[in-house]
Amino acid sequence: MAANRQRSERSPLLNRETLLSYFPQSQRVYVCGTNPGVRVPFREVRQEATRLADGGRESNPNVRFYDTSGPYTDPAVPLEPGKGLPAIRLPWIEARGDSEPYFGRAAQPIDDGYLSWNHKEKAEKRNGASGGALSLPLSRQPRRAKRDAVTQLAYARRGIVTPEMEFVAIRENLGREDRVPERSDREALSFQLPGAPLGARIPERITPEFVRDEIAAGRAILPANINHPESEPMILGRNFRVKINANIGNSAIGSSVEEEVEKLVWAILWGADTVMDLSTGKDIHRIREWILRSSPVPIGTVPIYQALEKVGGRPEELSWEVYRDTLIEQAEQGVDYFTIHAGVLLRYVPLTARRRCGIVSRGGSILAKWCLAHHEENFLYTHFEEICSILRAYDVSISLGDGLRPGAIADANDEAQLAELRTLGELTQIAWKHDVQVMIEGPGHIPLQLIQENMDLELRHCWEAPFYTLGPLTTDVAPGYDHITSAIGAALIGWQGCAMLCYVTPKEHLGLPAREDVRAGVVAYKIAAHAADLAKGFPGVQEWDNALSKARFEFRWNDQFALSLDPTMARSLHDEALPQEAAKSAHFCSMCGPHFCSMKITEEVRNFAREQKISPEDALTQGLEQKAKEFRKGGAAIYP
Amino acid sequence: MAANRQRSERSPLLNRETLLSYFPQSQRVYVCGTNPGVRVPFREVRQEATRLADGGRESNPNVRFYDTSGPYTDPAVPLEPGKGLPAIRLPWIEARGDSEPYFGRAAQPIDDGYLSWNHKEKAEKRNGASGGALSLPLSRQPRRAKRDAVTQLAYARRGIVTPEMEFVAIRENLGREDRVPERSDREALSFQLPGAPLGARIPERITPEFVRDEIAAGRAILPANINHPESEPMILGRNFRVKINANIGNSAIGSSVEEEVEKLVWAILWGADTVMDLSTGKDIHRIREWILRSSPVPIGTVPIYQALEKVGGRPEELSWEVYRDTLIEQAEQGVDYFTIHAGVLLRYVPLTARRRCGIVSRGGSILAKWCLAHHEENFLYTHFEEICSILRAYDVSISLGDGLRPGAIADANDEAQLAELRTLGELTQIAWKHDVQVMIEGPGHIPLQLIQENMDLELRHCWEAPFYTLGPLTTDVAPGYDHITSAIGAALIGWQGCAMLCYVTPKEHLGLPAREDVRAGVVAYKIAAHAADLAKGFPGVQEWDNALSKARFEFRWNDQFALSLDPTMARSLHDEALPQEAAKSAHFCSMCGPHFCSMKITEEVRNFAREQKISPEDALTQGLEQKAKEFRKGGAAIYP
Repeated sequence: MAANRQRSERSPLLNRETLLSYFPQSQRVYVCGTNPGVRVPFREVRQEATRLADGGRESNPNVRFYDTSGPYTDPAVPLEPGKGLPAIRLPWIEARGDSEPYFGRAAQPIDDGYLSWNHKEKAEKRNGASGGALSLPLSRQPRRAKRDAVTQLAYARRGIVTPEMEFVAIRENLGREDRVPERSDREALSFQLPGAPLGARIPERITPEFVRDEIAAGRAILPANINHPESEPMILGRNFRVKINANIGNSAIGSSVEEEVEKLVWAILWGADTVMDLSTGKDIHRIREWILRSSPVPIGTVPIYQALEKVGGRPEELSWEVYRDTLIEQAEQGVDYFTIHAGVLLRYVPLTARRRCGIVSRGGSILAKWCLAHHEENFLYTHFEEICSILRAYDVSISLGDGLRPGAIADANDEAQLAELRTLGELTQIAWKHDVQVMIEGPGHIPLQLIQENMDLELRHCWEAPFYTLGPLTTDVAPGYDHITSAIGAALIGWQGCAMLCYVTPKEHLGLPAREDVRAGVVAYKIAAHAADLAKGFPGVQEWDNALSKARFEFRWNDQFALSLDPTMARSLHDEALPQEAAKSAHFCSMCGPHFCSMKITEEVRNFAREQKISPEDALTQGLEQKAKEFRKGGAAIYP
Repeated sequence: MAANRQRSERSPLLNRETLLSYFPQSQRVYVCGTNPGVRVPFREVRQEATRLADGGRESNPNVRFYDTSGPYTDPAVPLEPGKGLPAIRLPWIEARGDSEPYFGRAAQPIDDGYLSWNHKEKAEKRNGASGGALSLPLSRQPRRAKRDAVTQLAYARRGIVTPEMEFVAIRENLGREDRVPERSDREALSFQLPGAPLGARIPERITPEFVRDEIAAGRAILPANINHPESEPMILGRNFRVKINANIGNSAIGSSVEEEVEKLVWAILWGADTVMDLSTGKDIHRIREWILRSSPVPIGTVPIYQALEKVGGRPEELSWEVYRDTLIEQAEQGVDYFTIHAGVLLRYVPLTARRRCGIVSRGGSILAKWCLAHHEENFLYTHFEEICSILRAYDVSISLGDGLRPGAIADANDEAQLAELRTLGELTQIAWKHDVQVMIEGPGHIPLQLIQENMDLELRHCWEAPFYTLGPLTTDVAPGYDHITSAIGAALIGWQGCAMLCYVTPKEHLGLPAREDVRAGVVAYKIAAHAADLAKGFPGVQEWDNALSKARFEFRWNDQFALSLDPTMARSLHDEALPQEAAKSAHFCSMCGPHFCSMKITEEVRNFAREQKISPEDALTQGLEQKAKEFRKGGAAIYP
C-alpha cells in the first residue's frame, strides 16, 4: 500500500479519484452476455430532471457510453499499478483447449536495446546476465497454438461464435436490444437522421452472428492475442463503429516506463480504442511488458523498430533471423497487432526519388535502406508466409504497413503509394490463407479531393479488409495544429469506410507528444470518428448528440458538461466567463447575457404554448394573438 | 507619443514589435496595379539556402502570402491607435463623383444602449447631452450616393472595372502574372495536384475583368462601404479563394472598447478576411466606431442587435423606425455588410416548435418573438425594398441571415431551415433589383452526410449568390472543441463551394471568446479554407504546402516555423522537446532521435545518388549495387 501510494503521488493519473474526476456524474455498468464471463463495460451519465414551466419535473434517462478505459474507472476493481489487470479472457482461451503454455523465449538484455554501449552496460548491470528482472512480477508463461490457428478468423470461418465476438456485439450495441433509431420524430431522444453509408452495410442491430460473419469475410478483425488476456474485445471494420488509435512510446531522446504507462491510461481514459507502442529508445522490452499488462485495449507495435535496436540502429544489418526472434518475443508478450511493412518492394523505392518528402514512414525507410544496401527484395515480403505461420499460433493480427505513404500533399496518391497498396492486397490473400487477421494501413498527407480514391482503391485492391489510416492530413501548412488538419481528413475517410483512424497530435512533425498532446489528439479523433458514425448512420449514435443538445437547450449546464466528450474542458471554458456555481444553473450564458438569449426566447415561446395547453404549432400562431393583446396591440393584418 | 506608449503598455498587442514578432523572417511587399493607389499588400517569408551534399548551397525563393493584417504589420505606416488607419480608398470613391459628404445623423446617447438605466446615466455623464464624444477624433463626414447606387454591383453591371476590382484580382493571384501551376513535375515548387472544383469555374489567372463579371453575375460580392475607406478590397465568391470571418464583440457581461480593438487586430493578424462586430452590451456605437476606423478588413454587423438595445432589450417593442434609424447610423459609420434576418417569416416559426433546440440564432429568435407578439409578418421582410434603397446609397452588402438555422444535429436540414432558405432566394432577387450586393448565410449544426444538400440547395434557390456558413458543426457532443467539430464541416462545405466560413471558437456554447480563443478559431478556419482551396484546385495555393514540406524535408527548422500558419506555435512545440538553438539546424527531431530518422535515411539515399552523378531513379537501383559492395556483400539474387 505504501509503495502504491508513493507511486500515486508521483503519478497523479494512476489514482482512482483523479481518474474518476474527469468524468462527473458517471458510473460503471456492465451488460452480461450468454457466454460465462462476458461482462461488457459501459459508462452511464446521470442527468438532472428537466424543470417544467408548471414547476413540475421530468426525469431524464441515463446516457450510456462506449467505454475504453477498462478497470481503471471501475471502483470495484483495485487499482494496483505493477500488478497488471485481470486476465478476463484467460478462461475463454483455456476453454477452447487449442493452445497451451510453454517455456517461451528467455528475455535477454539485448531486448532492451543495444543502441549505445553505455546503455547496454547499464542494462546488464541492472538485469544481470539473465535479464529476468525485465518482466513484471506477475509474468505468466506464454501460450501458443497446439496445432491449428487460434485466430478469431479461424474460428469465424469454422462457424464458431466466440465469447469475444459476443462481447463485441454487445459493445457495439451499447448493450441494448432495441436500438432501432426513430427516423421521424425529431423530439425523440432516439431520433436519428438517415445516414449515407456509402457502401457500408450496417444492420439495425449488431448480432454475434453478424460479427462472426464479418470476421469470416475478412471485412473486420478482432485483435486479441491469446497472450494479452487482459484485453476487452473490440472490433475493426467498415460495418462497425469507427475506432481510433493513439500512438505512444519513447524515443532515444526521452521518456520512461512510468510516463508511457501514464500515457496509455490517459489515452484510453479519453477514448483510444487501441494503442500503439512505438518505442524506439531504451527499455523497449520492459516498457512493452508494462504497457501490455496494464492495457485493456489491444496493443499494436512495429517489430522492425525493436529489431533495429538489436542491430545497433544499422538497417543494413537487419536479418530475417533477428526479425523473427523479435516477432516471437513480442507475440509471447501479447502484442495484438504488428505493423509489417512487407509491401515496400525493392522496385518501388526508386519511385520515391523525385518526391517532395521521399519516404516518411520510419519502417518504410528502414526497409528501403535495407533493400538498397543489399540490392535484395524486402525480407518481410520474401518471408511473409513464415511470418503468418508464426502469428497464427498467437492470434497476432497483421496491420500491413504503408511504408511508402506520402509525407507531403505533393506526394499524395503517387505511383509509389499505389504500387505498394496493390502489393498489400496480394499479401492480404496470403495472410487469409493462413487464417491470420489483417488490416491495411493508409496515408498520410492527402488533400480532400483525393481521399475518396484512397478508400476506393483500398477496398478494391485489398478485398475489403479493414482500412486503418493516419489522418489523413489535408494540408502541410499547419505544424502545431496537425490534430486539426488531420481530423478533417479522418472524419471524411471514416465516413467513406475507414475502420480505424490513427490519431495525430499537435506535436506531429515537431516532437514526441506529451500528456496534453495525447489528450488533444484523442479528443480530435473521437470527434472525427463520431462525426463519421453519424454520417454513416450507425444505429443509435445520434442519441449522444440529442441528449447533449437537450441539456443545452434546457440550461442544464452540469449535464451539458457531464455529457461532453471532455467534461473538464467544457466546464473550465465556461468557468472562464462565469465561475460562480450559480451560473451552472442559470438560464443564460456569458455569450448573450441574461437579457438577450435566443434559447431563452425560444423556451419562453414554448412555455407560453404549454401554459395555454395547446399544441406548440397551434400555440405559436394562435396563442400569440392573445399575447399580442397583452401588449395592447390590435389584430394586425397578416402578411402576405 | 507618451499617450501612445502608455496605451502600448496596456495593450501589448498594439505594439509594432510585438505584432511583427509573430511572423519571423517576414517582410511586407506591395504589388501595384494600373489604377493610381492600387497597392496590394503581401507578406513574404525569406528562406535559408539548401545545403547540398557537395557542400554547396542552393537558394530558396521567398514565399508570398495573402495578408489580411493591413498597415499593422507594415513598418512604414506609423502605428497610432486612436488615429485610425489611412483612408486608402477615399481617392477612388471621390474620383467616381457619384457620392458626396453630408451632415449625417447625429450620434445620440441612446446609440450606446439603454439596456439598463444605470448604464444610460453613465453614458450621459460621460458624453454630456450631445454625445459627440462618442466618436473618434478623426471623425469624417459620412458620404452617400448622389442618386444612383454606388455599389460595386452597379458598377460591374455597367461594365466598369473599379480600382477595388483590380486590387482584388492582384490579391487573389498573389500579385503574380504567371501563376499557372505545374501539373506534372512533383519536384517543382509550383507543382499542384488537380483539384475537384465540383462546379466552380476557376480560371488559371484571376483578371480584373473576371472579378467584374463574377460580381455582375451576383456570384461574388466585394463588400466595401464608401464610409469605410480604410478597408483593403477583398472578394467573396465560389470562384475565388475561400475566406473566413471572425466574430468579436462584447456582451452585457463583459469586455471593453480596448479589448475589442485588440481582438480585431489579433483576428486579422492570424488571417481573418472579414470581422463581424456582434457587440450587444454597452458602448455599442463607440466600439463599432473604433473597430471601423481601425480595420483594414470589411466589417459586418447585425443591426437588429443595436436596435434591440435601443428599445430596452424587449423584442416586442422593436419597430421599423428604430431599425431604419440603426441601419443609417451604421451605414454612415462604414459597416460593410449587414446580417438581415428577413427570411424569418411568421408562418415558419411554428415549424421550429418541435425542434430539439428551437431557434438558436439571436437575430432569428428576436424576430420570431416580434412576429408572434404582433402576429404580423417580419418587418424586415415587409420593408425589404426600403432596406435595399438605403443600403445602395452606401454600398452596404446584405448577408441574408439564417435565423432558423439548426442548433442541433437533430434539427439539420429541416423544413424550417429550408423554407427560410427559399425565402432568402426570393429576397436575393429583390436586392439585385436594387443593385445591392448580397450573400446568403448558412448553418449551423449539420452532420457530414447532409452538408452537400445545403450547398446544392443554396446554389439552386439563391441563384449562386455567395454562401457564408457558420461551420457547420458536424456533431453536438464536444463543447470546448467546437472549432474542431466545425472546421471539419467548414473544410467540406468550402470545397463544395461555400465562399466564406464563419469561424467557431473553442468557447462556442460556453462563453465569449477571449484572445486565445480567437486565435484558435481563426487558425482552425484558415486550415479549413486552405484545405478547401487545395481541393478546389485554386491555382498556386499548393506552393505553400510545397515550400513548407521542402523546408521540413531539408531540416530547415527555422524556415519550417516561419512558413507555418502559426510560426509561434510551431516553434514553441518544438522547443518543448529540444529548446536549444542548435536543434533548429539539427538533422533530426525528438520524435525519432538522431540515429533513426526516416527523412534522414531518404536524404542519404538521395545524396548517394547525387554523388554518383546519375539520376535518382537509376541511382537507387544501380548505384546501390555499389553500396552493397561497400558492405562487403556479394550480388544477391533479385526477388522475385
